[in-house]
Amino acid sequence: MNAQIQSALNWRYATKLFNPAKKVSDDDLNTILEATRLAPSSLGIHPWKAIVVTDEAIRKQLRAAAWNQSQITDASHIVVFAARKTLDEEYVNAYINRVAETRNQKVEDIQGYKQMIMGSFAQKSPEAIKEWNARQVYIALGFLLESAALIHIDTCPMEGFDPAQFDKILNLDSSAYGSVVVATVGYRSEEDKYALAPKVRFPINSVIETV
Amino acid sequence: MNAQIQSALNWRYATKLFNPAKKVSDDDLNTILEATRLAPSSLGIHPWKAIVVTDEAIRKQLRAAAWNQSQITDASHIVVFAARKTLDEEYVNAYINRVAETRNQKVEDIQGYKQMIMGSFAQKSPEAIKEWNARQVYIALGFLLESAALIHIDTCPMEGFDPAQFDKILNLDSSAYGSVVVATVGYRSEEDKYALAPKVRFPINSVIETV
Repeated sequence: MNAQIQSALNWRYATKLFNPAKKVSDDDLNTILEATRLAPSSLGIHPWKAIVVTDEAIRKQLRAAAWNQSQITDASHIVVFAARKTLDEEYVNAYINRVAETRNQKVEDIQGYKQMIMGSFAQKSPEAIKEWNARQVYIALGFLLESAALIHIDTCPMEGFDPAQFDKILNLDSSAYGSVVVATVGYRSEEDKYALAPKVRFPINSVIETV
Repeated sequence: MNAQIQSALNWRYATKLFNPAKKVSDDDLNTILEATRLAPSSLGIHPWKAIVVTDEAIRKQLRAAAWNQSQITDASHIVVFAARKTLDEEYVNAYINRVAETRNQKVEDIQGYKQMIMGSFAQKSPEAIKEWNARQVYIALGFLLESAALIHIDTCPMEGFDPAQFDKILNLDSSAYGSVVVATVGYRSEEDKYALAPKVRFPINSVIETV
């Protein structure tokens, strides 16, 4: 498995040109999305959702709001990650209920955990909570990208879009969520000249230090 | 591989108690760290480093600055992720030089790419750049956590520490980097009652939407 991980992650690159004719199978898509869902988040509260956009008309609108980058319409699938804009007691209650349900506990018995979570929110500004939620999205994005690479499916993570326009197009405006980052998922085109370009990384001893 | 990913990510949990006697092998550690290094970042500029802390005295100090959580000293390894506090032209030049070196290009020929990067920074406040760097760290954290799980090594991602104290202990204070998040890496203790607790996640249709 060590060699498989290394080989998959060296094979992965941020795909510039997708082959629009090649679709990801339902089985592979489920693997990728389930891996994403299983990503951890701080305190386990999972403050995001992922929107898989399949509607072609919507994808065209999104492309226009993303500097016309071709991946948005040409990839097999596009996943828009949206983070919660706030975290409030109502949301924490929903989470605590889910913990109780999943672990067969009584809600009353895990009020200490709820208070701990509420206490950690109380120390953060609304802006800091929003950012903190966004950071958790990037863990899930990492799980999506790595899982796809392991099954030889290409991806391109994208921040180059107008979040306000995306929110409007996806009807997130009046919701608790705002778009943060996009993953396009599919198969590279044979014409993508970046596919075989050597991966640029700083030398390992300047990136990983040991003390 | 699909089944392996699903099984590994269901097996993974945020380890509360590590077995201090069980060490991760050099080969496995290298796989995990190399996977981390291969994680993508926006524009490819990789604005972070990871510090593997092996010195026991330093780990004791870090534990004291992390609410005395046992993972900091009991895990086989601890990795502190530190993000760049700023991004400036000097750093971008270093990156552009690395691109040219890696891809056998002339620095003069990729000045357009440099200007594009500098232009994208110019649109962000110093605070936004700092946050953006931190978000990139979480992609790498995701790669670390998933890669470890795939080779059945336990981890616990941790945000519960005092970054200012960590920076002092790790001599980051006067550096371009500041600590953001920690991954502890090792083997679970048989006494960790959380190891077999069902994983709490919201139902898939509330987390993954299709439009």
